[in-house]
Amino acid sequence: MPEDRAGDPFAATRAAFALPEGLVYLDGNSLGPLPKAAKARVAAAVEAEWGGLLIRGWNEAGWIDLPARVGERIARLVGAAEGTVRAGDSTSVNLFKVLSAALALRPEGVVLSDSGNFPTDLYVAANLCRALGRELKVVAPEEVSGAVGPEVAALMLTEVDYRTGRRHDMAALTAKAHAAGALTVWDLAHSAGAFPVDLAGTGADFAVGCGYKYLNGGPGAPAFLYVAPGLQEAAAPALAGWFGHAEPFAFEPGWRPAEGIDRMLVGTPPVLSMTALDAALEVWEGVDLGAVRARSEALTRRFVEAVEARCSGIVLASPRDPAARGSQVSFRHPEGYAVMRALIERGVIGDFRAPDLMRFGFAPLYVSEADVDRAAEVLGEVLETRAWDRPEYKARAKVT
Amino acid sequence: MPEDRAGDPFAATRAAFALPEGLVYLDGNSLGPLPKAAKARVAAAVEAEWGGLLIRGWNEAGWIDLPARVGERIARLVGAAEGTVRAGDSTSVNLFKVLSAALALRPEGVVLSDSGNFPTDLYVAANLCRALGRELKVVAPEEVSGAVGPEVAALMLTEVDYRTGRRHDMAALTAKAHAAGALTVWDLAHSAGAFPVDLAGTGADFAVGCGYKYLNGGPGAPAFLYVAPGLQEAAAPALAGWFGHAEPFAFEPGWRPAEGIDRMLVGTPPVLSMTALDAALEVWEGVDLGAVRARSEALTRRFVEAVEARCSGIVLASPRDPAARGSQVSFRHPEGYAVMRALIERGVIGDFRAPDLMRFGFAPLYVSEADVDRAAEVLGEVLETRAWDRPEYKARAKVT
Repeated sequence: MPEDRAGDPFAATRAAFALPEGLVYLDGNSLGPLPKAAKARVAAAVEAEWGGLLIRGWNEAGWIDLPARVGERIARLVGAAEGTVRAGDSTSVNLFKVLSAALALRPEGVVLSDSGNFPTDLYVAANLCRALGRELKVVAPEEVSGAVGPEVAALMLTEVDYRTGRRHDMAALTAKAHAAGALTVWDLAHSAGAFPVDLAGTGADFAVGCGYKYLNGGPGAPAFLYVAPGLQEAAAPALAGWFGHAEPFAFEPGWRPAEGIDRMLVGTPPVLSMTALDAALEVWEGVDLGAVRARSEALTRRFVEAVEARCSGIVLASPRDPAARGSQVSFRHPEGYAVMRALIERGVIGDFRAPDLMRFGFAPLYVSEADVDRAAEVLGEVLETRAWDRPEYKARAKVT
Repeated sequence: MPEDRAGDPFAATRAAFALPEGLVYLDGNSLGPLPKAAKARVAAAVEAEWGGLLIRGWNEAGWIDLPARVGERIARLVGAAEGTVRAGDSTSVNLFKVLSAALALRPEGVVLSDSGNFPTDLYVAANLCRALGRELKVVAPEEVSGAVGPEVAALMLTEVDYRTGRRHDMAALTAKAHAAGALTVWDLAHSAGAFPVDLAGTGADFAVGCGYKYLNGGPGAPAFLYVAPGLQEAAAPALAGWFGHAEPFAFEPGWRPAEGIDRMLVGTPPVLSMTALDAALEVWEGVDLGAVRARSEALTRRFVEAVEARCSGIVLASPRDPAARGSQVSFRHPEGYAVMRALIERGVIGDFRAPDLMRFGFAPLYVSEADVDRAAEVLGEVLETRAWDRPEYKARAKVT
């Protein structure tokens, strides 16, 4: 990882992003900012590749290799071996694929999840279970470990709670699930790019993750999925299509899955969005994830301390121990939505999650100590002056 | 539709595309060319929206409305009422959604399809049927009508055969399926934008289609799906996620489908690719689909006549009657792959489908009579001089 003149190894990564001047961006846990490389690469994909090569782009611009190329770039960030990660589709669709593959391998038993899971994961599981005549069991996050037993076919969890940042113990829960005969399905939406993930080391069976949060792939960027090497040849997802066929361009009438992880691909990938994600991942080259984690803990600790020293009327919703949380910090305030709107208008961008959570994400690649201090200062002012108490801040937008 | 000075109503639409100088592009049935509007819109989505607005783009740039906005633009092209079409995901994923919804509405009976269907459709159906313990029955295209009976739950067909351009009679087959108690699922991949489709008038139940062929949405552009108004409130696809929830940003733990067609959305849409498709659809504004069809028939007829007058050793694989085919023409040649490579090197781009089909697509928005004549002339030369007979033309690329 290149260091800049001042010895800050993250100055170079920060410079790789086109961040608007003067903005404190603490919402990279929802949408990462634009990497400069992505801007150039997408323009080239549109003009030179689509416009100039037309159909020849599939071979000559390597569009056909994007799911694998992007997947392999992500593999390193989540501790996965080569040939175990592929990119494409949305996180929800990928979750459906891997969960249906897990249930095909475990034809009896329930899907166990928790109420701290991101809602779409629960929706995907509920609808899949209804179609298959299976059962989804949802318990409180702290009850998950005790609920793992022989009746569980698949343990489906999001490692980091999207509201509070609370982290599950992936290694311990995976071991417990395996001891009970269950397969694990991990959602790494708030993990990948936020801290080192060790899919291979923990023995996770299946995983999915998001391309547009800490990976900075752009709005609605394609997601990724992981299948452990030992399960790939047996994986039979309910959703499979021609990009997962052994020979897509042989146009055979019958289904014949590709060897290994490629069988998890389905339809034609959205090349422009895939290209943006591919370019965004270049920023990670040479970046040490241990250093990312250390910086994340330092930034979140600094924020919690500054806010608690400066502000009253808000309550920390995240675990106080940095080791127990991801790379975000959430505070509760009864008028959290209006407070966040006031912050955004003052150039400090976080977001809000019902009913009362203000979320602040600290992506070490581009968030600085000065950002942290400025955010705490503005939050203090907004609360102290009740600047949030205006009708226009309370009117909810379509997307929160 | 604006006419240019010479009275050609398609001169204006042709001018809307950034076609490379001197190229005859007859592969719009596989990947449409770059509309000039898409280039500008994608650049703005990257720089001003993602880069400048960041997370605020969901509300302020209207990203959240893309699935509906793009869907409504497509609706007019396929004869669908407002509120019946949504864009997003790949064609394969959309097919999975609507077929699973059809099978939930018809819990008994088989899926009937034909061997002329695009392979991914058969793969999607086969894998879904395996997961659900249902049966997929595949017959020859000419046997479909006779095979529709009371044991059929869903009739799943692609209207236009991707190899030959042969068209099914959507109205007659839909009526026959309904009389037998079956639901219909139509794939309009080679129909939408190629000729007028009348989903509402034929009474089709479900449909899907492709964004990157005649709709020119860019490589891997998001696809679309259609659900007839009377089926929407009962539709319960096996694959459903938060964008299909009644209130995605209420983050409720339980699944509660949105009213109407929006319940068919799943995950976060790929905004950059959706934006390109949205911009590409602007070209269609004011375009009369009847005129498109008339021009398509004229262009394909002109090509067949010119080729048959000029070339020997190749056999027409498409129906001779223009009314019986889509907007493409295919010829068989034992060395079709090498012939097509020779054509492409000479600036005439079509494509090849195993085992021996050379496909030529005639998208009326930008293909001219001069293109048709030039393509036939070059094809004649290549065949006459055996210019295709070179090893480098016979070596197969990854994507054909």
